[in-house]
Amino acid sequence: MECKKEIWQTCGEAFVNQYYQQFDCTNRMGLSSLYSDDACLTWEGTPYRGREAIGAKLVNLPFQRIAHAITEQDCQPTIDSCILIMVFGQLRVDDDPPMAFHQVFMLKCLNGAWACTNDVFRLGIHNIPV
Amino acid sequence: MECKKEIWQTCGEAFVNQYYQQFDCTNRMGLSSLYSDDACLTWEGTPYRGREAIGAKLVNLPFQRIAHAITEQDCQPTIDSCILIMVFGQLRVDDDPPMAFHQVFMLKCLNGAWACTNDVFRLGIHNIPV
Repeated sequence: MECKKEIWQTCGEAFVNQYYQQFDCTNRMGLSSLYSDDACLTWEGTPYRGREAIGAKLVNLPFQRIAHAITEQDCQPTIDSCILIMVFGQLRVDDDPPMAFHQVFMLKCLNGAWACTNDVFRLGIHNIPV
Repeated sequence: MECKKEIWQTCGEAFVNQYYQQFDCTNRMGLSSLYSDDACLTWEGTPYRGREAIGAKLVNLPFQRIAHAITEQDCQPTIDSCILIMVFGQLRVDDDPPMAFHQVFMLKCLNGAWACTNDVFRLGIHNIPV
């Protein structure tokens, strides 16, 4: 019998599903609506601040098609009633081979809805043992 | 000329250094003092709650020696004056081959000192393309 999920787990998983569905559909522009006004994104080490800058970064990523597959996700509640999520997965852009990626989100309930206040993205190429 | 680092970046990097130095030295017991009373740890998908449970998990990990090498770390400030850190690295336990790992920390200033309130750890084995 599976235990009833905590609300932060349900909300975290729902956000992750929505985020990557939106990312992989043709309207990447809509992703910016998932971020808070003053959200932080660190994309492969480069920081972007604010919904507008983040939306522009994501919309202008240099590929036509992308598909994310989530392999693991860990959610936690925080002391300030936020939700911390670490996502592991693979992504495939255009006809390239699949690549591992890692992404961390922090969500906060603002004006009655969960918004992403923090996002850290890295491809899984930074710590492969040689 | 390098820009002056933000305080959250300096504090985040200092925590990461201290954490892995403590982890890799023989006194793993001391790690628990870096966590807040009610901290959350998710270790390879299994949740642990509270400083005592987290300390016990870390102390009882089944190896004699461990060495962490950090390859990337991304720090961000949060809306609640916390610091979010995503760490990429490799670790080596006893005489095993090195393994990639990923760890996320959230730090909050409690009683005048930075404490880890959230920690998510995963080995880098969950999203390797085949």
